[in-house]
Amino acid sequence: MIQVIPLGGVGEIGKNMWCVRSPEGIIVLDCGFAFPTEEMYGVDLVLPDYKYLVENADLVRGVFISHGHEDHIGGLPYFLKRVPVPVYATPLTIGLIQGKLQEHNVKVPLHCMNARDRVTVGDMDIEFIQVCHSIADAVAIAVHTPTGTVLYTGDFKFDPTPIDNRPTDYFKLTELGEKGLLLLMSDSTNVTKKGFTPSEAAVAPALDAAFAQAPGRLIITTFASNIHRVQQILNAAARHGRKVALMGRSMLKVTQIAHDLGYLKYDDDLILDVDKVEQMPPEQVVMLATGSQGEPMAALSRLATMEYKGVSVTAGDTVLISAIPIPGNERSVGRIINSLVDKGANVLYESVQQGTHVSGHGSEEELKAMIAMTRPKFFIPMHGESRHLAKHAALARSMGVPEDNIAVCQNGDVVELDGETIKIVDRVPGGPVLVDGNVLWDVGQTLLKDRQRLARDGVATTVVTVDGNLDVLQGPDIVTRGFIDSADSQLILDEGKRRVVEVIDAAKARGTKDPEKLKGQIVETLSRYFGERTRRRPVQLVVIHQIKAEVETPG
Amino acid sequence: MIQVIPLGGVGEIGKNMWCVRSPEGIIVLDCGFAFPTEEMYGVDLVLPDYKYLVENADLVRGVFISHGHEDHIGGLPYFLKRVPVPVYATPLTIGLIQGKLQEHNVKVPLHCMNARDRVTVGDMDIEFIQVCHSIADAVAIAVHTPTGTVLYTGDFKFDPTPIDNRPTDYFKLTELGEKGLLLLMSDSTNVTKKGFTPSEAAVAPALDAAFAQAPGRLIITTFASNIHRVQQILNAAARHGRKVALMGRSMLKVTQIAHDLGYLKYDDDLILDVDKVEQMPPEQVVMLATGSQGEPMAALSRLATMEYKGVSVTAGDTVLISAIPIPGNERSVGRIINSLVDKGANVLYESVQQGTHVSGHGSEEELKAMIAMTRPKFFIPMHGESRHLAKHAALARSMGVPEDNIAVCQNGDVVELDGETIKIVDRVPGGPVLVDGNVLWDVGQTLLKDRQRLARDGVATTVVTVDGNLDVLQGPDIVTRGFIDSADSQLILDEGKRRVVEVIDAAKARGTKDPEKLKGQIVETLSRYFGERTRRRPVQLVVIHQIKAEVETPG
Repeated sequence: MIQVIPLGGVGEIGKNMWCVRSPEGIIVLDCGFAFPTEEMYGVDLVLPDYKYLVENADLVRGVFISHGHEDHIGGLPYFLKRVPVPVYATPLTIGLIQGKLQEHNVKVPLHCMNARDRVTVGDMDIEFIQVCHSIADAVAIAVHTPTGTVLYTGDFKFDPTPIDNRPTDYFKLTELGEKGLLLLMSDSTNVTKKGFTPSEAAVAPALDAAFAQAPGRLIITTFASNIHRVQQILNAAARHGRKVALMGRSMLKVTQIAHDLGYLKYDDDLILDVDKVEQMPPEQVVMLATGSQGEPMAALSRLATMEYKGVSVTAGDTVLISAIPIPGNERSVGRIINSLVDKGANVLYESVQQGTHVSGHGSEEELKAMIAMTRPKFFIPMHGESRHLAKHAALARSMGVPEDNIAVCQNGDVVELDGETIKIVDRVPGGPVLVDGNVLWDVGQTLLKDRQRLARDGVATTVVTVDGNLDVLQGPDIVTRGFIDSADSQLILDEGKRRVVEVIDAAKARGTKDPEKLKGQIVETLSRYFGERTRRRPVQLVVIHQIKAEVETPG
Repeated sequence: MIQVIPLGGVGEIGKNMWCVRSPEGIIVLDCGFAFPTEEMYGVDLVLPDYKYLVENADLVRGVFISHGHEDHIGGLPYFLKRVPVPVYATPLTIGLIQGKLQEHNVKVPLHCMNARDRVTVGDMDIEFIQVCHSIADAVAIAVHTPTGTVLYTGDFKFDPTPIDNRPTDYFKLTELGEKGLLLLMSDSTNVTKKGFTPSEAAVAPALDAAFAQAPGRLIITTFASNIHRVQQILNAAARHGRKVALMGRSMLKVTQIAHDLGYLKYDDDLILDVDKVEQMPPEQVVMLATGSQGEPMAALSRLATMEYKGVSVTAGDTVLISAIPIPGNERSVGRIINSLVDKGANVLYESVQQGTHVSGHGSEEELKAMIAMTRPKFFIPMHGESRHLAKHAALARSMGVPEDNIAVCQNGDVVELDGETIKIVDRVPGGPVLVDGNVLWDVGQTLLKDRQRLARDGVATTVVTVDGNLDVLQGPDIVTRGFIDSADSQLILDEGKRRVVEVIDAAKARGTKDPEKLKGQIVETLSRYFGERTRRRPVQLVVIHQIKAEVETPG
């Protein structure tokens, strides 16, 4: 009997984290983070809730990572601080994790495994299987347990012509099917896309066209981690006689690691220092910059709005956006494109120049092929929002996986497999943990709700000093921010003060002396008044100072 | 000599408003609003800045409206309150404007004009020319001035098979070209889309498929104003023996107006009361609901999350989203789709079922055809962000309009045409006016910046009561909201209070007695301390009460 528990990555795309629990222990598959959505004010990143693993820390044997994207490794430093266990991953992934752990000063054993390597942990045997994806060195993870084998695909596509000549390991996948696969957990990201996802190589013509046609400097932005894309850009630069300036912290870091490990191949003299860019003939330069998602602090954004290390965009420059906006980033990417156009650049992006990007996730036909090759007895669709999971489950049904053998689950569901059935038997915490990255504090729901109300309606602070008889000694003062700034603001606040005095007088007449009760009455009165007058209900802070003792007169 | 002034609609998609000024007066073309973007906290709508027209109110002769979408009519009630002039529009557009003006209690003469009607205003002659768009009764507006003719396309597509059999008036457009067109101002929304935009009729197969295949109830959402789409849905319902329940305020309102005016044709017994829905056999029902953009208060959202007038979504329901998300709405639409899937509905939307929507804006080939038919001497691309305007300008150049005859402008640019040249000669206010819709106040930049900071970092209020010697009588108290809620919040605030006391003591020692100076020192000290300790800098409100007189002791 084994249990499979998603802590992140179902009902959402992002912060992937799964547990496989056998009688002898628990292994963790991936540990990502997600970026906050726009209503998560002051939140820097979102982690899976791994309370279950903290509580069972003595059972956790290690974390196995499928590939080096943030939604698969980004949560590691935070998790490993709480549950320091060994991490197993392929060389490039280890390279990316290392820097991350150093930054956070986290030390755990890092075990390098290549595709087809196996490692035994307790009663489980873990095997890496090579897959194609938009980062090099990605693997699916097969977990051989006493109850049967579980295959976690990670993110994958079937790319028949991968840039690094390292195709998906069809033999190993089909071997699992041949020997009998207990459970397949498969990537649903692109389940709503028909057909096959084009090969990474399909981007070459658009890249070549951009290099051939750019009359002056060429600026290309893509995900730094997309080593295959970076390789293609470097190759094109060499072919077209341009030097490459790398721009942006992660572009420099990732290319360095990938180059050192042999995943990225180029001659050192192909690379140009950023501070030499302005001295080169424009038609001999290509700048490879971070910021394909419109991130305001990334290199492309700084090129577009001011300058990046002395370089800025000018008329005659060509900008190629070799990426598409992740849902939610459309507007910020659009803004950067407009800024670049305003500076006179010719901007090539997917809707004006087809073929500038391909996805790293398999489409419907590839997801079907994965099921057909591995022939699983049980199926869990993963890496998807509800609509993707439902569609993927329907695909599996259409291919003969019985309805009862499919579990569409939520983060925190404890899914139990005894070899004959699949059942959700329990729930553990699975909600998102919102993190203020500066201080590593969880951002609670109350804080978030306050920020949302502050954002909409602002704040009004009322301060009054009274004596023991509730006679007003000073104030009331009402100070606001983000609430009103109309011509009659002062009139509105003056009337508010008058009403506060009324409340105090009434309290005095009734003999109420409890300042807490009085505070509540002031909040209520002002809330009603502000609501009527402005239709806004600011967050209210009321402070009453009551001076009971005789005060010495100023010396 | 004439001037053309965009007050809204260039450098953006939304809040379209243009002026044409001749020696004898000014006419206004369209008067829309835009929806706020996510960083405009507490803003309900965004208006064009029409200060220029308010200042020249005696010259303004009237507003001519191209069609009844909010980004073309939404600003009217606000503008007409300041500059009450007659409005000219086609019958359906007048119908939509009427309700809007009544709600705002605005009374101006409304003049109904049909396509091909002409009206003379001072030295200008204004002519309506029928075009196809995603709302019925849309027109382009030709303004015949002493200097020449200006054509404002409004929003348009060339639909060869329009649902209402009212095609774009090719004769009138080509006649303008034949007689010599001075200036073309043309819709750039879809300039980055290749080819032709499909006819509205192209949606019929997807609609028919949804009707034929839905095993139970069918729920369709689209823009209420898309009369042609609504007509097609009503026709399909009649063909497939389903009754139609109309859901959502604007769906009821727009269909009523369009039906009354003869733009929407259906038998009254096709319509089903919402409260009868639950009593009908599911396969005989179609619900036509607002909310295609994921608006949280619209009918679809309420169906998906709780219920709308007693109806909610259940397993077996089919939902067809006959629209695509406007950029920026992707996430909210995605959320609704997930909620509907969670309730067991089968959801058909563009990425899973092609052909569920077509755009109302012409693509590249139609924009070229517009230039080819009207053969303008001068050209201004409009209705577009920078990238669209630049692309449209390039299209015009590629078709032989000289570079010097094209003006890519910004809101507020005063574009002058003397018949021989086009020049930007001046600027008038053209920025966005952010409106708090509840009270019709402008939301100023300071207010907005405060709200943005409150949203991110929260607020901290410090209150202290001192005597004339700066001896602390009560406090300091620090009250926060949206700032911190970690385990050591109290420790942090206690240390903050201690530092406030230090500041006061130091001021006392120095003999400072100016409370304003003291306030500044407290803000500075706490800002530094909070920044170090939490990396956040909350908005700070400091109130110092100084009790100078002797206080009576409590009786």
